[in-house]
Amino acid sequence: MSERLGVRNPRTGQIDYWITPPPRDKLADVCARLRQGQIGWRQLGLARRIEIVQQWKETLLVHRDELITALTTDTGRRTESVREVDVVGSTIDRWSRIAPEVLSEGDERATSIPVIRVRREFVPYSLVGVISPWNVPLALSLIDAIPALLAGCAVVVKPSEVTPRFIQPLVKTIESVWGLREVLGYVEGAGETGAALIEFIDLVCFTGGVKTGRQVAEAAARQFIPAFLELGGKDPAVVLASANIELATSAILWGAVSNVGQNCLSIERIYVAESIFDRFVEKLVDKAQRVQLAYPSLEDGRLGPIIAERQAVIIEEHLRDATRKGAVIHCGGSIENLGGGLWCRPTVLTRVDHSMKVMTEETFGPLMPVMPFSTVKEAIHLANDTIYGLSAAVFAGSEDEARAVAGQLDAGGISINDAALTAVVHEAEKNSFKASGLGGSRMGPSAIKRFVRQKALLIKKEPVSDPWWFGDREA
Amino acid sequence: MSERLGVRNPRTGQIDYWITPPPRDKLADVCARLRQGQIGWRQLGLARRIEIVQQWKETLLVHRDELITALTTDTGRRTESVREVDVVGSTIDRWSRIAPEVLSEGDERATSIPVIRVRREFVPYSLVGVISPWNVPLALSLIDAIPALLAGCAVVVKPSEVTPRFIQPLVKTIESVWGLREVLGYVEGAGETGAALIEFIDLVCFTGGVKTGRQVAEAAARQFIPAFLELGGKDPAVVLASANIELATSAILWGAVSNVGQNCLSIERIYVAESIFDRFVEKLVDKAQRVQLAYPSLEDGRLGPIIAERQAVIIEEHLRDATRKGAVIHCGGSIENLGGGLWCRPTVLTRVDHSMKVMTEETFGPLMPVMPFSTVKEAIHLANDTIYGLSAAVFAGSEDEARAVAGQLDAGGISINDAALTAVVHEAEKNSFKASGLGGSRMGPSAIKRFVRQKALLIKKEPVSDPWWFGDREA
Repeated sequence: MSERLGVRNPRTGQIDYWITPPPRDKLADVCARLRQGQIGWRQLGLARRIEIVQQWKETLLVHRDELITALTTDTGRRTESVREVDVVGSTIDRWSRIAPEVLSEGDERATSIPVIRVRREFVPYSLVGVISPWNVPLALSLIDAIPALLAGCAVVVKPSEVTPRFIQPLVKTIESVWGLREVLGYVEGAGETGAALIEFIDLVCFTGGVKTGRQVAEAAARQFIPAFLELGGKDPAVVLASANIELATSAILWGAVSNVGQNCLSIERIYVAESIFDRFVEKLVDKAQRVQLAYPSLEDGRLGPIIAERQAVIIEEHLRDATRKGAVIHCGGSIENLGGGLWCRPTVLTRVDHSMKVMTEETFGPLMPVMPFSTVKEAIHLANDTIYGLSAAVFAGSEDEARAVAGQLDAGGISINDAALTAVVHEAEKNSFKASGLGGSRMGPSAIKRFVRQKALLIKKEPVSDPWWFGDREA
Repeated sequence: MSERLGVRNPRTGQIDYWITPPPRDKLADVCARLRQGQIGWRQLGLARRIEIVQQWKETLLVHRDELITALTTDTGRRTESVREVDVVGSTIDRWSRIAPEVLSEGDERATSIPVIRVRREFVPYSLVGVISPWNVPLALSLIDAIPALLAGCAVVVKPSEVTPRFIQPLVKTIESVWGLREVLGYVEGAGETGAALIEFIDLVCFTGGVKTGRQVAEAAARQFIPAFLELGGKDPAVVLASANIELATSAILWGAVSNVGQNCLSIERIYVAESIFDRFVEKLVDKAQRVQLAYPSLEDGRLGPIIAERQAVIIEEHLRDATRKGAVIHCGGSIENLGGGLWCRPTVLTRVDHSMKVMTEETFGPLMPVMPFSTVKEAIHLANDTIYGLSAAVFAGSEDEARAVAGQLDAGGISINDAALTAVVHEAEKNSFKASGLGGSRMGPSAIKRFVRQKALLIKKEPVSDPWWFGDREA
């Protein structure tokens, strides 16, 4: 585990950064230190923990530029990097507000048995492990870590080896905050380090692909530790005949192409009523062609390079498979090597069907395969014909019409007359359906309860008369 | 999987009953049929589902004697069998009352983004699988099945092959209730059938030992289906110097010996302040000796035989290991073969320590090893020195004193001045700590939410102005 790993720059294709995964005993030491720190962290109480995390937010602001620069090198795109850094601040603020409402210090109540009262307490897990992906490297490394910290846990994060440059400036901010540095650790490394980490933690949050997710889930199960998995998707958009085409094409383009489609909740399949199909495609192609690449300079356009080289291979394979089977490409349609980076322009495909990978496997690229349907029933069937169930979108002229369809889609978060709203709305609890994940909702106020165990003290009122008995119990 | 399995009678030691596990394709058929039935069951709505389950309760009352007789043959004890049948009725009533409070048909609320509303819906899992144990065969086969049914799931139950006689009379009651028979199925079989079952279900509830529980958890993880595990325990009782000895000995005896100690939440280790140790042991031995075996007739006493032959081997091994290492037996202390059944009288041991299996491994028998402690800190350390964390009990003269100790015990349910209260109080949500289980609380009103997925509809208000954009989003 101690060999140096080279990191590729997505804009140049060059290896220009290196990380050294910790050897196993070092990893064990880090976790033991955090676990030790958690004892005091829990005792501080929630109000003090909020103060410390807020202090960290101020430090993040001071180092904002440094973080943005590192993240931009990691990912090759600037706007989303700025957003990521700012999202951390708003995440801290949101959980600082919610945590005191959701996590009481405990309460006491009567039970159906008059002589017994129940006192309820929340006991944080000692050490939460977070294994996070490369598509939104900073924000997704902290989306679960922040509520876990406020709940009273220590947290160890293992970000993706594809985008690790942000770790060092981030760790600098953590190290400068008394109290926090004892309970929040980052470790560099690849899959091997993630696998080793699971042995040292009490709960794991994983965001990533289905294959690794399954390994994480099995390893966690072996140890009886909870696993919260946020995995892939193949999110469909269903556009009914009554939909506003102008609105639908803009929303779907955004949902499919932002961050170059490198989002678990990207729109990856589009089903359009046949009566509006041609107009829809024309409009979508027109808008797609107007999206510019951020090349040669970061400021030249809105779309960055493909971050992970291995993902470019998958996108290319999906394109090849689709065209071989008869798909027609209206714009985009290839992986371009520009200055050493790998780029893909927004790509609209038609004449697609479910024999093609582009309609069934996660692409994680800016591909928009559009397929017509003749009945709403058929659209629902097609949308549900997938191993995934993360989210979906429905567009219709009336809310009722859209809701009737949404109610029948097997997915946790469904946007109506917009796309990928689960990325911007934080209030809605939702579960992943099918292979898109496992465990309680990451969204919504009660998401923080994933990081505590409930403990019940059942208190028998005194004095209790005690004729010796060995019979049945009341209740 | 289609070989006939013989079933031993715990009072005679004779194989006098046989079950035939379904072959794989038959099992698949049963699950497919239940899954099909669930579609209509969900559509019926909660109020109608409650009516049908209440109708079933009436049918259970009609067949009460038949069920009690079968269960008594399965387990060799009568009083607990009567209780089990009656508990099913009260479980049905409790969930009929709670379900409408907890599972709304959905609601709608504003979000922090003015143009977006969230509608929340609960979507039941199609087919819930229950794998249940032999110690409380009927009640534990239904403890999760009843809330799952009311939540709108179909349920398939695979009870233990050790105690399957109750299945046939129970199935008769299910078959006679229109609506229910389509969504509640029982299958006979051993571990192989349970393992096969996991491939056909969407969620698994398992009650049983750690070893099998780990296999269940891993198999569930592989398929990304939620696993709710209720596993073993090695519940400690801590008796402080200020405790009421009369009360503590009665409660601990009950907690350790009822159902012959064959409860996951049995008291299996007792730590007593050294200043009251001798008086405590004397009193406990006195009371333990007065508990009579229900032998030769069922009505002769309160304590039944050991249900599972393989468990008698473990109890004997724990006794042998303890005495070999210096433990002293004050009463009981052996497995007796009476009329072909295997029996164990309440057994008090002293001079025990944590090098002995009787203090560290689950015994599941009526053994009460008692160990003195000199400081409260030592008592807490000893109580937590275990891989388990199911429940515990603390006895003290004042509630505050008891609570100070209870707060430091790593277990989910802690009885204060009584033992095993989690068996009689249903209101308290609690999680299993360490290797005692995994997944949300089986107790408390929100336990029913384990059987639904939350789905969020994020509704963008219309009309939406749509200047074409491809920029950042609000929030």
